[in-house]
Amino acid sequence: MTRKPTTSRKHKGKGEAGVRIEKLAQSIVDSAHHRRDPTINVPIRALSNIEFNEKTGYIEMGDKAQGRNLFNYGQAKRFMQTVLVGSKVKELIDSGKTASIRQIYYLAKHTIKGTHEKTFEDQSESDPIIEDLEVAVDSLREELHVFAAGRGALIGELTFVDTGDTIDATHLGSGGYAIPSIVEPDVIQFKKCGAKFVLHLEKDTVWRRFVEDRFWEKHKCILTHGNGQPPRGVRRLLRRMHDELKLPVFVLLDNDPWGYYIYSVIKQGSINLAYESSRMAVPDARYIGVSSFDFERYDLTDNVKIELDANDVKRAKQILAYPWFKGKRPWEREIKKMLRNGFKMEVEAMCSKSLSFVTEEYAPERIKNKKFWLD
Amino acid sequence: MTRKPTTSRKHKGKGEAGVRIEKLAQSIVDSAHHRRDPTINVPIRALSNIEFNEKTGYIEMGDKAQGRNLFNYGQAKRFMQTVLVGSKVKELIDSGKTASIRQIYYLAKHTIKGTHEKTFEDQSESDPIIEDLEVAVDSLREELHVFAAGRGALIGELTFVDTGDTIDATHLGSGGYAIPSIVEPDVIQFKKCGAKFVLHLEKDTVWRRFVEDRFWEKHKCILTHGNGQPPRGVRRLLRRMHDELKLPVFVLLDNDPWGYYIYSVIKQGSINLAYESSRMAVPDARYIGVSSFDFERYDLTDNVKIELDANDVKRAKQILAYPWFKGKRPWEREIKKMLRNGFKMEVEAMCSKSLSFVTEEYAPERIKNKKFWLD
Repeated sequence: MTRKPTTSRKHKGKGEAGVRIEKLAQSIVDSAHHRRDPTINVPIRALSNIEFNEKTGYIEMGDKAQGRNLFNYGQAKRFMQTVLVGSKVKELIDSGKTASIRQIYYLAKHTIKGTHEKTFEDQSESDPIIEDLEVAVDSLREELHVFAAGRGALIGELTFVDTGDTIDATHLGSGGYAIPSIVEPDVIQFKKCGAKFVLHLEKDTVWRRFVEDRFWEKHKCILTHGNGQPPRGVRRLLRRMHDELKLPVFVLLDNDPWGYYIYSVIKQGSINLAYESSRMAVPDARYIGVSSFDFERYDLTDNVKIELDANDVKRAKQILAYPWFKGKRPWEREIKKMLRNGFKMEVEAMCSKSLSFVTEEYAPERIKNKKFWLD
Repeated sequence: MTRKPTTSRKHKGKGEAGVRIEKLAQSIVDSAHHRRDPTINVPIRALSNIEFNEKTGYIEMGDKAQGRNLFNYGQAKRFMQTVLVGSKVKELIDSGKTASIRQIYYLAKHTIKGTHEKTFEDQSESDPIIEDLEVAVDSLREELHVFAAGRGALIGELTFVDTGDTIDATHLGSGGYAIPSIVEPDVIQFKKCGAKFVLHLEKDTVWRRFVEDRFWEKHKCILTHGNGQPPRGVRRLLRRMHDELKLPVFVLLDNDPWGYYIYSVIKQGSINLAYESSRMAVPDARYIGVSSFDFERYDLTDNVKIELDANDVKRAKQILAYPWFKGKRPWEREIKKMLRNGFKMEVEAMCSKSLSFVTEEYAPERIKNKKFWLD
């Protein structure tokens, strides 16, 4: 087990994942030929091996790794499972197909010949193996052709190509484009962008308010949502729009610990999947509301208040202690003010002023007035 | 309280909901002028007032109704809440806007002047009032301009107009069209249909398998999913495609009580929202799998088995007792066989044969071979 100073992990381009799996396989074969114990080096995915990098602005995985050996009674099964999942993933890449983590589980599950031993008992065994493989060959899950459940939608000033089809996101009616799980450049290419920024909303219902009021047209932007905590496809797309289209990303979420957490995942990455931050996180994302100070700022009434419960208070204090919030004066003020308020507020509560207050006054003012930005 | 024989509820066209709310309001004003106790007649939404109509093939609400009076200590608050929600809904209709049930809650919530009394304490108070209003004025929620959270997507041989935008669902890449909550004819109009049927899938991940394998193109169909139990928008769209485009609707779900339940909701309507069945249910929908007999039929291995737990067994027995399954020999055989099997099977388990077995062999065979249909 070694530990080196954290550096940003480098990812290679399309098609590379397959090559790296092959290399891994070759090293195992070589070990066998040289009568050495075959081993797979798996970087450790645990709190003990992550760090917040002030410079890049996101959570990163350290360089602690653990060998997984075939000739070790405690590691042999996981070793073989990793090789098995690796071979299934290689088949996917070679055939140009993709599969869900559940489909991978069924693809890889079988009874070992001549025994009653199953390769996997259930999916809770195969999921971590997929994550192990991701870090072992330093590839995003999407590059391994593995997809997660999709959630979230997009509408706005963007034309892009998805699997050969050109999609003009200004002409998608009220429904919008369902953001898939895999949005890598070999699937989605940006063509024409008339947007000045991206506005990400927490919930489908709030997003519909903005779509119905044609906010994207009036303010020349792209509207996305992730139905709660944004899934991988949405986060990756936000990152790509930010990087490749040079668009600022604004985030409008509920004034509650869950909203803060979602913001933090979009911006710094999630603790569980720290190894993906360098491809998913948007450190420049800006939180534009709802803010704990809005109650006074917008002269709101008691009708918008939802009392904090014990769990909210606990979560808020945890979030306040995150290295990326700790010591940031505006965020400390923001979260402490919520705790002092004793209540939380939802974006939808702005309806209590008027149905379209949030699209006609609140959001435009927050985006325009940099003083309101939290970062 | 009266009870008449159940007849199919008749709904009127677009714009009518506003007129009916106005009528309701006028009757209240008239009562006041005539010094009568103002009352709103609310059909009862409870098990005691629903019935399965063998002829139409769906669950229907009976004609039991309850008066809600202003001058009744126990009813006055709910009377006033109903009028309040009615007035907010009328504003929505008049302004051509829509709102979520949460937004309605915030729109209608206020402290009554000169008191500390709030019109609504929380959303659990306003949601049933919206449902009361739906049945009182005999309009779908969507006609009242109220939307639910959206879920689900569509790809396939259909061109339609959504809010003025023409969308060709054969050119939506891998993402697809995110099905909105309101899909009424004033929002969505079908233009060109090259599909021979609709195939509805339970989960996003299975849907992606079909999309990636371009099933819709090979078999000339429309693919939808509802991310679990399909939300209102998806159900209504299935119904409209069935009615207006004359397309058979096939449903491919997991072989478990939850899959049976989803099928039953698509086909007969849900018990809670029986009053909507006549606009949402698709009595002609056909269940094409997964079936309890598939284990032997397709020579599957133990790897596809997921043991039934006590709750599965309980739910299966409940479903077996539903009037629309009871006495149907194929369904009785199907559910009893699952109980005898002692295990359930997911659509994704078909991957254990090969990744695309479900799209290349299973589904085409099930659709072609009417012998396999359950209805």
